[in-house]
Amino acid sequence: MPDPVVDLRSDTVTRPTRAMRAAMFEAEVGDDVYGEDPTVNRLQERVAHLLGKEKGLFFPSGTMCNQVAIATHTRPGQEIICDRDCHVFNYERAGASHLGGVQLHPLDGRHGVLSAQQVRSAVRPIELHEPPTGLILLENTHNRGGGTVYPQDVIEQIAAVAGAAGIPMHLDGARLLNASVAGSHSPATLAAPFDSVYFCLSKGLGCPAGSVLAGKADFIAQATRLRKAFGGGMRQVGFLAAAGLYALDHHIERLADDHRRARQLAVHLKDLNAFDVELDAVHTNIVMVDVHADCTAAAVAADLTAHGVRVSVFGPRRLRLVTHLDIDDAGVERTVAVFKRLYG
Amino acid sequence: MPDPVVDLRSDTVTRPTRAMRAAMFEAEVGDDVYGEDPTVNRLQERVAHLLGKEKGLFFPSGTMCNQVAIATHTRPGQEIICDRDCHVFNYERAGASHLGGVQLHPLDGRHGVLSAQQVRSAVRPIELHEPPTGLILLENTHNRGGGTVYPQDVIEQIAAVAGAAGIPMHLDGARLLNASVAGSHSPATLAAPFDSVYFCLSKGLGCPAGSVLAGKADFIAQATRLRKAFGGGMRQVGFLAAAGLYALDHHIERLADDHRRARQLAVHLKDLNAFDVELDAVHTNIVMVDVHADCTAAAVAADLTAHGVRVSVFGPRRLRLVTHLDIDDAGVERTVAVFKRLYG
Amino acid sequence: MPDPVVDLRSDTVTRPTRAMRAAMFEAEVGDDVYGEDPTVNRLQERVAHLLGKEKGLFFPSGTMCNQVAIATHTRPGQEIICDRDCHVFNYERAGASHLGGVQLHPLDGRHGVLSAQQVRSAVRPIELHEPPTGLILLENTHNRGGGTVYPQDVIEQIAAVAGAAGIPMHLDGARLLNASVAGSHSPATLAAPFDSVYFCLSKGLGCPAGSVLAGKADFIAQATRLRKAFGGGMRQVGFLAAAGLYALDHHIERLADDHRRARQLAVHLKDLNAFDVELDAVHTNIVMVDVHADCTAAAVAADLTAHGVRVSVFGPRRLRLVTHLDIDDAGVERTVAVFKRLYG
Amino acid sequence: MPDPVVDLRSDTVTRPTRAMRAAMFEAEVGDDVYGEDPTVNRLQERVAHLLGKEKGLFFPSGTMCNQVAIATHTRPGQEIICDRDCHVFNYERAGASHLGGVQLHPLDGRHGVLSAQQVRSAVRPIELHEPPTGLILLENTHNRGGGTVYPQDVIEQIAAVAGAAGIPMHLDGARLLNASVAGSHSPATLAAPFDSVYFCLSKGLGCPAGSVLAGKADFIAQATRLRKAFGGGMRQVGFLAAAGLYALDHHIERLADDHRRARQLAVHLKDLNAFDVELDAVHTNIVMVDVHADCTAAAVAADLTAHGVRVSVFGPRRLRLVTHLDIDDAGVERTVAVFKRLYG
Repeated sequence: MPDPVVDLRSDTVTRPTRAMRAAMFEAEVGDDVYGEDPTVNRLQERVAHLLGKEKGLFFPSGTMCNQVAIATHTRPGQEIICDRDCHVFNYERAGASHLGGVQLHPLDGRHGVLSAQQVRSAVRPIELHEPPTGLILLENTHNRGGGTVYPQDVIEQIAAVAGAAGIPMHLDGARLLNASVAGSHSPATLAAPFDSVYFCLSKGLGCPAGSVLAGKADFIAQATRLRKAFGGGMRQVGFLAAAGLYALDHHIERLADDHRRARQLAVHLKDLNAFDVELDAVHTNIVMVDVHADCTAAAVAADLTAHGVRVSVFGPRRLRLVTHLDIDDAGVERTVAVFKRLYG
Repeated sequence: MPDPVVDLRSDTVTRPTRAMRAAMFEAEVGDDVYGEDPTVNRLQERVAHLLGKEKGLFFPSGTMCNQVAIATHTRPGQEIICDRDCHVFNYERAGASHLGGVQLHPLDGRHGVLSAQQVRSAVRPIELHEPPTGLILLENTHNRGGGTVYPQDVIEQIAAVAGAAGIPMHLDGARLLNASVAGSHSPATLAAPFDSVYFCLSKGLGCPAGSVLAGKADFIAQATRLRKAFGGGMRQVGFLAAAGLYALDHHIERLADDHRRARQLAVHLKDLNAFDVELDAVHTNIVMVDVHADCTAAAVAADLTAHGVRVSVFGPRRLRLVTHLDIDDAGVERTVAVFKRLYG
Repeated sequence: MPDPVVDLRSDTVTRPTRAMRAAMFEAEVGDDVYGEDPTVNRLQERVAHLLGKEKGLFFPSGTMCNQVAIATHTRPGQEIICDRDCHVFNYERAGASHLGGVQLHPLDGRHGVLSAQQVRSAVRPIELHEPPTGLILLENTHNRGGGTVYPQDVIEQIAAVAGAAGIPMHLDGARLLNASVAGSHSPATLAAPFDSVYFCLSKGLGCPAGSVLAGKADFIAQATRLRKAFGGGMRQVGFLAAAGLYALDHHIERLADDHRRARQLAVHLKDLNAFDVELDAVHTNIVMVDVHADCTAAAVAADLTAHGVRVSVFGPRRLRLVTHLDIDDAGVERTVAVFKRLYG
Repeated sequence: MPDPVVDLRSDTVTRPTRAMRAAMFEAEVGDDVYGEDPTVNRLQERVAHLLGKEKGLFFPSGTMCNQVAIATHTRPGQEIICDRDCHVFNYERAGASHLGGVQLHPLDGRHGVLSAQQVRSAVRPIELHEPPTGLILLENTHNRGGGTVYPQDVIEQIAAVAGAAGIPMHLDGARLLNASVAGSHSPATLAAPFDSVYFCLSKGLGCPAGSVLAGKADFIAQATRLRKAFGGGMRQVGFLAAAGLYALDHHIERLADDHRRARQLAVHLKDLNAFDVELDAVHTNIVMVDVHADCTAAAVAADLTAHGVRVSVFGPRRLRLVTHLDIDDAGVERTVAVFKRLYG
């Protein structure tokens, strides 16, 4: 029997454990469009509490959390300050412009981190020709930045700029719990400077699907209406919420294991001449690997796949490896072994 | 112990049976954003086959099926011919205009049924000022029409108008299987005149959530991209698809029971002086009840709720009652008894 | 030398008189994007005063007035109550939905006139699924209605419905001055129930181009920003404004002549067996002529054109004739003569 | 009598000469919405010929040319590659996103000039998450770049990238005739690599208002429809077109005088210690002046205004001076004198 594939493409590929499936199987459910699914309601309350916000709202995806938050905070014709490498600018099919009518104003951060000075300079003057700045959007941890944890003092400086200009702040916190586990801050502390924030259940937490957006009560009330417009209103979705509640009980602390394994991968791959890894940028469960010289990322990824290791191509010369619930120490060892055999 | 509530508000309120839960519990899943969830793939193929289309695509909701189909068929600035009582015009928060940039052109059908002549007259001339007609959208069964089954010959006449004008057709078939069971046509026959069609898993079929859109391969390819933009891409969503597969095996024929019970309700309520029911319009699992004289629908609904029967208010003097998987003969009897006690 | 063509297609076809040209030639101009065109400023103040509003704003067209007013009053995802025959629903290429993201909710008025009861019934309840009613839009005089003057008491009843529901009102007053001259109300009285109103300079007033929108100061401030987004900011546009000022001095009272001539046309054409004219609906400068039996409107229009009379086709069997500054008594006589020769 | 103000804020502030007014006064006009304005038609043909395209279309503004071109070339959800300093990203109130639903992808050019390599790297892969690249938009001369002339060989290299990827190219040529006069290329040569291009009549050409967009016949046919939706259809607009025809006869070659005077200003201001001017970047009629040290651009602009010289503030420390038809040698001398008196 061949070794199973080591799938490092994303932490979204995790399959629920038997225990999580059991929690789902027993879930008490109701019609959530009527607000009557008790498990969804419990999850929303729990996440709101965890993030220090008034209310939470379940969504089928993180993309819809971002899009609905954007459409709730802004009006068409406004502009959003963000990092050039952020998810919203790169991986949401231009939804903010397409569905929200807002212009993205991407700045060149360092590993996805903007400085308060950059943000301040990008806030538009109140003027006839320029689009008003309607939102500042940050991402923590930062996916294309390499899973980087946003320094909280920088966030607070940016929040001061936003506050002075009367501009709301939204946090794409798809992997916020990774940031919390990797750093010294509670999720609520990380979320405090933001008017809205969400995290994904289907990444490091290992759930099948879903994300929860949190914010003030009237923000969530309006987001509920927009969720309906986007087609995100689901019925007995407590099955997915049950997985989320289970994960909040059992899968947060273990993110530290993912981070440890990512670092192991990073250290070993950096040793190989064919690759570059910026060790200082490996904060959580993501490792960005730059391919040297005369080889493309696509070619390396294909070679690895042929040997049972799957990774993502993130640029002509960049690979992304992500550790998660379904990657154990043996998976890391096998990955390192395959890399060494092919490129050692 | 009090009698359980008889919830006739909608067929969306059904809770999965133990057998359906078991099917979900055992589902084999994968990351559907990568197209790797085998259960989702099976469901999509099965629905495509059932509807006689090339491909199917799973969505979190029927609203998103409609919105994505609209955005795929049309360009902003076009117009959609539809019935004034249709779901898209009334219950999707103006999404076709908001997210799709298209104008709805609602016509006054009879129980939701338009004539080919009405449609022909509404097709816009090719002209500088008028918006081009980009889509004809029908609904079968028709919810606000009272669960009416669209006569298939009328649909074919409308399709001839559409074909002559080169305009695509989309079917909001949320309750298409009700139409099939109530009439003499297979789902594929009902779907044949349309370029795209979807039905809901979470209504009469009794699943927790989800809908499947079907059409040509290139239509579905573009719809997949728009589903991503709308935030409808989910990960291990095979759990919901497993419920769908179970329902296709076990819950289609039994829709006839819902239809029989709806007719029983209709016949009994028509006997009461306080209400009007158009018996000829009760084709499937929906009963529209018009409240007489000096009472409002809201007041009647409140009285019924106080006696353990829940119905929907569909207008100042109109109630909607919907039968479904969780309404058995006893539920119908208790409903009739409560009505008689209060209004007999 | 052949007789000149009698062009009754629209009152937009008028060419400026020598005197109006002279006023344009001498206009003092500046850069209106900077708000520095003195002639534009004078026109805007004058129109605001005439309409009893705080501020006025010059636009290149009436369509842009409507679209910018809609986008200023509403948010995407809202709905606008209007008449099915109104200009915005029929002749603005679905701009309200395309550019404003709002759904039109067209009602079946009589000659373009809605009743307060119709409007009241169409206001949406505050509810999760239905789009909120964001604007009530009326048109006075009503073009497709046949140049009908909206009864002011009906407008006031509709305004009471709007006020009770907190919904703003916009008046498409492209031909508002016709309504004022035909009735007994000043433009300010006609405009009073509305939050915003515009009229066209390029129709009955005989100017080359332009319209002026009026409303409260903050409404106009926001409309100015949207005018920029739509590309309606022009520079030394005082040349067009000078024509407008000239017309306000010299071309308002004479609209009564257009109305008298329209009635003459209506009376004579009604006498012909081939046509139907509803005399009671001829209030101003528009005559709708319905073609009988075995002939189409397009064929009649072609015949007339061949004999030097141009009219608009407004439906398979409907023609529209519009009197204006360039139609004198001789033009009316020649039109009647041609009709009699061809169809008498 | 005080000296008249020297207004260097923009070349849009020019007032038509008596000769241009006379040309306008005598213009033969018609209803351009019906395509019947002979002067507009002549202008459109003339510009199409000048730019080597099949058809031209008159617009009230350059912003509307850009927006309509964008909406014609793209579909919502696509992305446009452009320079970060371009007009569309900065001065059109986010219209491309608001009205067109497309995302701007701004790159960091040098004086507004992108390299083909930058563009190639920014073209998105065909992929589920990323928005497809739908348009490449360049600006020549480049306003915020300092009136820079885009090197034609670079444009051709970018066009090769676009061609290989099947992506259309649009040129914001508001000041294209300045580029032609300053360089060695005809307007048609400059426009050749682009699918669409427009230039402004109301800038260096000294007309009151208007721009002309040019491209293939079917592109212009669709742009005509979108112009209607945007409210850019005007009636007897031949008055403005007549100014345009006059300017094409009399005001092109004289742009060289504006360029000479801009250089004179640049050379003199560079000599002052308080300011920095990059002489190599002064290609045409725009001079960017950077304010040193302890003074803001706003303060300098206010001081200059108090002494009869008006300039634009283009950043916290940047001023823009633009020469044009209404700035003669005496205006340049007086400007230099005021600068020297205040900052010498």
